[in-house]
Amino acid sequence: MPEPRSIAPATGRLGILTPGLGAVASTFIAGVLAARSAGATPIGSLTQMAHIRLGDREEGRNPLIKDFVPLASLDDLVFGAWDPISANALDAARTAGVLDDRDLAPISGELEGILAMDAVFDQSWVSRLEGTRVKSAPSKMELAEQLMADIERFASENGCDRLVMVWCASTEAYRDLTEVHATIESFEEGLRRSDEMISPSQIYAYAAIMSGVPFANGAPNRSCDPPCMVALAEREGVPVMGKDFKTGQTLMKTILAPGLKARMLGLRGWYSTNILGNRDGEVLDDPENFRSKEVSKLGVIETILEPETYPELYSNVDHVVRINYYPPRGDNKEGWDNIDIFGWMGYPMQIKVNFLCRDSILAAPLVLDLALLLDLAARAGEGGVQEWLSFYFKAPMPKDAALEAEHDLFIQQIKLKNTLREWMGEEPVTHSEA
Amino acid sequence: MPEPRSIAPATGRLGILTPGLGAVASTFIAGVLAARSAGATPIGSLTQMAHIRLGDREEGRNPLIKDFVPLASLDDLVFGAWDPISANALDAARTAGVLDDRDLAPISGELEGILAMDAVFDQSWVSRLEGTRVKSAPSKMELAEQLMADIERFASENGCDRLVMVWCASTEAYRDLTEVHATIESFEEGLRRSDEMISPSQIYAYAAIMSGVPFANGAPNRSCDPPCMVALAEREGVPVMGKDFKTGQTLMKTILAPGLKARMLGLRGWYSTNILGNRDGEVLDDPENFRSKEVSKLGVIETILEPETYPELYSNVDHVVRINYYPPRGDNKEGWDNIDIFGWMGYPMQIKVNFLCRDSILAAPLVLDLALLLDLAARAGEGGVQEWLSFYFKAPMPKDAALEAEHDLFIQQIKLKNTLREWMGEEPVTHSEA
Amino acid sequence: MPEPRSIAPATGRLGILTPGLGAVASTFIAGVLAARSAGATPIGSLTQMAHIRLGDREEGRNPLIKDFVPLASLDDLVFGAWDPISANALDAARTAGVLDDRDLAPISGELEGILAMDAVFDQSWVSRLEGTRVKSAPSKMELAEQLMADIERFASENGCDRLVMVWCASTEAYRDLTEVHATIESFEEGLRRSDEMISPSQIYAYAAIMSGVPFANGAPNRSCDPPCMVALAEREGVPVMGKDFKTGQTLMKTILAPGLKARMLGLRGWYSTNILGNRDGEVLDDPENFRSKEVSKLGVIETILEPETYPELYSNVDHVVRINYYPPRGDNKEGWDNIDIFGWMGYPMQIKVNFLCRDSILAAPLVLDLALLLDLAARAGEGGVQEWLSFYFKAPMPKDAALEAEHDLFIQQIKLKNTLREWMGEEPVTHSEA
Amino acid sequence: MPEPRSIAPATGRLGILTPGLGAVASTFIAGVLAARSAGATPIGSLTQMAHIRLGDREEGRNPLIKDFVPLASLDDLVFGAWDPISANALDAARTAGVLDDRDLAPISGELEGILAMDAVFDQSWVSRLEGTRVKSAPSKMELAEQLMADIERFASENGCDRLVMVWCASTEAYRDLTEVHATIESFEEGLRRSDEMISPSQIYAYAAIMSGVPFANGAPNRSCDPPCMVALAEREGVPVMGKDFKTGQTLMKTILAPGLKARMLGLRGWYSTNILGNRDGEVLDDPENFRSKEVSKLGVIETILEPETYPELYSNVDHVVRINYYPPRGDNKEGWDNIDIFGWMGYPMQIKVNFLCRDSILAAPLVLDLALLLDLAARAGEGGVQEWLSFYFKAPMPKDAALEAEHDLFIQQIKLKNTLREWMGEEPVTHSEA
Repeated sequence: MPEPRSIAPATGRLGILTPGLGAVASTFIAGVLAARSAGATPIGSLTQMAHIRLGDREEGRNPLIKDFVPLASLDDLVFGAWDPISANALDAARTAGVLDDRDLAPISGELEGILAMDAVFDQSWVSRLEGTRVKSAPSKMELAEQLMADIERFASENGCDRLVMVWCASTEAYRDLTEVHATIESFEEGLRRSDEMISPSQIYAYAAIMSGVPFANGAPNRSCDPPCMVALAEREGVPVMGKDFKTGQTLMKTILAPGLKARMLGLRGWYSTNILGNRDGEVLDDPENFRSKEVSKLGVIETILEPETYPELYSNVDHVVRINYYPPRGDNKEGWDNIDIFGWMGYPMQIKVNFLCRDSILAAPLVLDLALLLDLAARAGEGGVQEWLSFYFKAPMPKDAALEAEHDLFIQQIKLKNTLREWMGEEPVTHSEA
Repeated sequence: MPEPRSIAPATGRLGILTPGLGAVASTFIAGVLAARSAGATPIGSLTQMAHIRLGDREEGRNPLIKDFVPLASLDDLVFGAWDPISANALDAARTAGVLDDRDLAPISGELEGILAMDAVFDQSWVSRLEGTRVKSAPSKMELAEQLMADIERFASENGCDRLVMVWCASTEAYRDLTEVHATIESFEEGLRRSDEMISPSQIYAYAAIMSGVPFANGAPNRSCDPPCMVALAEREGVPVMGKDFKTGQTLMKTILAPGLKARMLGLRGWYSTNILGNRDGEVLDDPENFRSKEVSKLGVIETILEPETYPELYSNVDHVVRINYYPPRGDNKEGWDNIDIFGWMGYPMQIKVNFLCRDSILAAPLVLDLALLLDLAARAGEGGVQEWLSFYFKAPMPKDAALEAEHDLFIQQIKLKNTLREWMGEEPVTHSEA
Repeated sequence: MPEPRSIAPATGRLGILTPGLGAVASTFIAGVLAARSAGATPIGSLTQMAHIRLGDREEGRNPLIKDFVPLASLDDLVFGAWDPISANALDAARTAGVLDDRDLAPISGELEGILAMDAVFDQSWVSRLEGTRVKSAPSKMELAEQLMADIERFASENGCDRLVMVWCASTEAYRDLTEVHATIESFEEGLRRSDEMISPSQIYAYAAIMSGVPFANGAPNRSCDPPCMVALAEREGVPVMGKDFKTGQTLMKTILAPGLKARMLGLRGWYSTNILGNRDGEVLDDPENFRSKEVSKLGVIETILEPETYPELYSNVDHVVRINYYPPRGDNKEGWDNIDIFGWMGYPMQIKVNFLCRDSILAAPLVLDLALLLDLAARAGEGGVQEWLSFYFKAPMPKDAALEAEHDLFIQQIKLKNTLREWMGEEPVTHSEA
Repeated sequence: MPEPRSIAPATGRLGILTPGLGAVASTFIAGVLAARSAGATPIGSLTQMAHIRLGDREEGRNPLIKDFVPLASLDDLVFGAWDPISANALDAARTAGVLDDRDLAPISGELEGILAMDAVFDQSWVSRLEGTRVKSAPSKMELAEQLMADIERFASENGCDRLVMVWCASTEAYRDLTEVHATIESFEEGLRRSDEMISPSQIYAYAAIMSGVPFANGAPNRSCDPPCMVALAEREGVPVMGKDFKTGQTLMKTILAPGLKARMLGLRGWYSTNILGNRDGEVLDDPENFRSKEVSKLGVIETILEPETYPELYSNVDHVVRINYYPPRGDNKEGWDNIDIFGWMGYPMQIKVNFLCRDSILAAPLVLDLALLLDLAARAGEGGVQEWLSFYFKAPMPKDAALEAEHDLFIQQIKLKNTLREWMGEEPVTHSEA
């Protein structure tokens, strides 16, 4: 038996702060409120619903994860957000159009009381949006300081013992990292002279880490993965993890690709198209912003399939990803994938997947899980990159930048559960029969 | 480090006998011949293509499975078959229409030389087929004895050191087990008085086990899973495993369902329809034969999803499976699945999967793997049910009839690989990060 | 210029009576009420929305149909129904679940006031339904007389000048016609001795025609197409037409098949499957009732494609139609069609159509159009089969039983419009360029 | 009865010249050769396979079109082509990969004998292709003169009585028309000074018309629709028509959209994506060339649906068309359409169409029909735009530039057939019932 970790108890209130109070954040908040008030099931949340097997099959020990590890209770959560457009969570939910009126009605008062703070926003990074509720300051460092002041005020006003921040705002334009992102020093110097390569999401990540607040990045932005930010998280002992919530099409890829590989079926091409009608679709219709998403999406298949180990099966894959803004789809997202595989004697076959999904519905429980698990990690004394949470991300950060993070959903799941088992002093599960 | 097993070396020739010389068996044989003569890649075969990681990620030990465990070489394989219709493997391949002429041409001589022995066949179990090359005898026991004589003759004529039998013939009508299947004694008594509840596939399984030949069952027939047959396999120390090759639609189910469950997404319904144009389609157009297939297919989702543990997510699932004979599809099989899921706050989503697959192309490498792995198991001293091979089956047999076998493809894969690791004295892989 | 018909004006109230107050009838009524009270657009209704070109393109004469021919106004409609289950139109609409609460709310009072009369119902014709609000009588003739009394009472209580009946109830079991359906005399004799081959829908048709009420048949039942009923409609001078509303999948067939034929593309097979979750799905899950639907659906393709004229293209078509009850679909219906075509040099291609449709939404405007157009026909002095209304039916009745009715939607549309043009004294449109 | 036209007989040989000897032209030629030598059915060709009804239904007069109008016989056809890459029709067919070797083998000698002449080619109009067999000359006028000399030489060497030219080459970049295209004079002046806005396809069209050779344009290029070219065709009395063969996805649109409109169903959006793996896909991956195709494809829906007449149904349509180069698809083209419709009370429905098509197989018979029908038109004394052939084109040219051409496939078909009827002195068919 491994030695259990010492983990501080989850006493007091936990504040969850989201940059972005749009479709994802408002859906997340509404669902937690509904679970709290009306006992609605938090579907899609591992921390709330999943069981974890302990010991041998025969022992029959299979508790809920939340009964096994000391997580914050839903009753202890408090919500805060920054947004350049929405005034409060009710406005946000209504604009998003994800949830029906009949689901919003019983919690509308609570939602309306969750007010958005003015955002750090810069249209040069999200050209399709117009922000009206926006902070201004002489330098980016001062913007960061305003955020830190917001964090402190929120904690004290709401009596929070601990905080966690989860990025739920838009995808920023794709830009390569520069020298300014190399070290903590160069980055702080860049903040002071408002270096144009520092994006809003990096300012949030900086403010969170400097305030000792764990940070999860739900978008493909380069928020907490630049070297300077990883170094800062390690120095400050703050857990961080990203990036890009693994929701619709990429979730399917990390389910299907491991299946094809398990069976040693070859892959000749994977064509993915998406149609979206919401604010996200509008943002991604801009080539620069789509580029961020594309980079995040394209790595998945290659990392899972290991073409260098399996050149006959996976070294000649045409992988195409397209996203199109199509207003009739509304907040729903629809993916169509065409997967060209080949088997015995090279014979081709096709798998076509049409996913009528709802992005915010799939993302909301990830916000909850990441908030609770990052808070757990912090109480367990973890700092820096939390690779064991790769399960939740399209482009997971590896513990060590020289490695590739795992993309296979099933290995990610084992990694997550075996990590929890070991923290609690249980043996990992191996499924061995011999 | 676990103690490695003592495994007899794979010297000499291995005879692979298939009841059924139709689309699957002829495609399997053609592919092995092509691999042997022209170096074609045996795509889809774990034993030939997959690597297995040993030790920690950092060690970089990742050999091919076939370089890790002592398997028979493709060069040492000899092929034999029984069939009520085809005369030889070339005829069978041409009738099946799976492989193009240009792929058959270079190996046509070899294929033509693989002659089918007369089959044990009974139209009351497969009403849509007419057998012309069929054994007759006064009792079912004498039919079994004819098969045992065939086996012995085949081995001696072909200089085989070892044999293995893989069922590649049609789906039989669904009938419940009766008293005759309860014990070895009742079954042998039934063979002698030609009990009508004993199916042809059971006669083959009996003959194989009594001849010390490992047996794998690629159809949903109740060949080697009745209690009498499991007992016989244990008594004789012969490895057996079934049933029903996991190929197209069910393969997809055991890939997708674990993915949905990993994410705690609810399932409301799963509608599956199939169109097939080949002999298999004709057979399954008969309700009695379809019933066998349906029973084999329906268990998959429930076993994976554990509705008793997750009643809010999986206790109200409408699972419908349909198979239709549709001649324009030829040997190709096409599946259309409609998967109704729900997420956060109960909101519904749909996944639709259209699989343009080729049944025989997917099944052929399974025949190869099962032959080689059952032969390995025999040399490793195994007898009875080989649950670690559940990876290959739609309705895998559990080690202990009181248990449920695992259906999740990814757990099945871990089970298979960790079993091999332990046999060879390596540690199981846990992916734990802590 | 043709001589215009003399058509009586549409003065006074028109009562629309529907056997069946389920999803279709309640959706139809709700839509008319919404159009009347809130000005909602009656989408899908030719009589309300379509324009009709008159004369040459250059003349620019293109009035609305309802401004061109003298139809009853929506304001003059009154609704009545019989149903064995629903008590009133509001109950029916809520049970059906087709329309959202927010669409029912403004008209709920009116809907609740439309009470269902007790139905003529016989479970031997619809085994999956249990009727509770059902008429009883010593003979089928007396049931017919009760219906005639209902009709008379409804007209007088509601001050109707004219009435029309549109069958909106379930599909009955398929049974061949017998001697009892041969003549008016044999049928009436059968009614008196309650011949078991006389179905409830035939009793309604008889009662309607004998009351001088035009009758349209929206189900595949053999209501008004037996020889006795056609003869009766001619004798009484009452317009009738059927059968089976052309809504989802068959509508698509009569759109696509003419397109394939226009291009002289060959057809090898057409596989159609449907999933339905409503009462209709339950009824059609019974093989006897499905048989009625299947017969109605299968004729479409052959009639359009004329295999005897085009044997090289259309004489070898595998046409398969399946309907499956799948509760997760609710009132929505989903069709998946796989169409195997071939072109130049015989090369195959595939068209796959996935139709996420709503049966009642597609059927409702047909009820309105048929009611208004049959009433028009009656005022224009027509009696017997109205083939010009074939546009609305899956299995249209021909004017002369010896002929095939046209199934091509586009020819049906031309037929309908040119018929109206000629009645009003306008030239038919030919699109000729020469 | 109308007076029949005087039409010159189809005696002697007809030369069919195609700019472009790629997938379409080689497939077209191979199919005609196979029909001629082996009696293969020219599937997809109206002129060879379709019947035409004459007079009333009851008359039963329904001859083949080719027995009704005096068309050139397949036996009298001779083939010529220009191509910047392929050397002959066999090379072209093999590179294209459309037809199987077994279909090419019996006609390979004939195909090899059809040599490509050097092409007029300019990479600035098709950036993704490299031409190696290309004409050069000091001016574009001299290039045109070289083409006219080719035409004359071809006719005399092959003993042709008549010629016709059908553009089967690539899509050129989209560029707006300029002053140079305004009049015959400005265009000829532009040719002399090699105006950069004159594209290769315009040089071919000019050469054809000046040589008295009818011209059909199978690509979306602006070849024969600029005012100068229409004027030239009228002045020279040469029939011309375009543009862009109506094959896969757009063919489906002109079938489905009239069906939706017939039923007065509303349209909210139509999203179309295409994946192609051939040379055409490569060319269209360039945004400038895609633009040509997009313009040609987008007009279809609007023209058919008449949003100004039906604003409630069709004035708010999001129509998106995408084409992606995806090499695994090879010469096959796959379209996925998502059609968002709405019906009664505004309720939404979706139609999804997945078309696994073969572009060249669909285009080949159009080349044949257009060649034969333009030759017929010439013999019937026609000159200028032949709107009655709109049936074959994605973006048909109207007789009068001020009008919209008809896009509805079914009206186009009626127009074509009624034109032939009138030329031959038969009454148009009206389908009227009254």
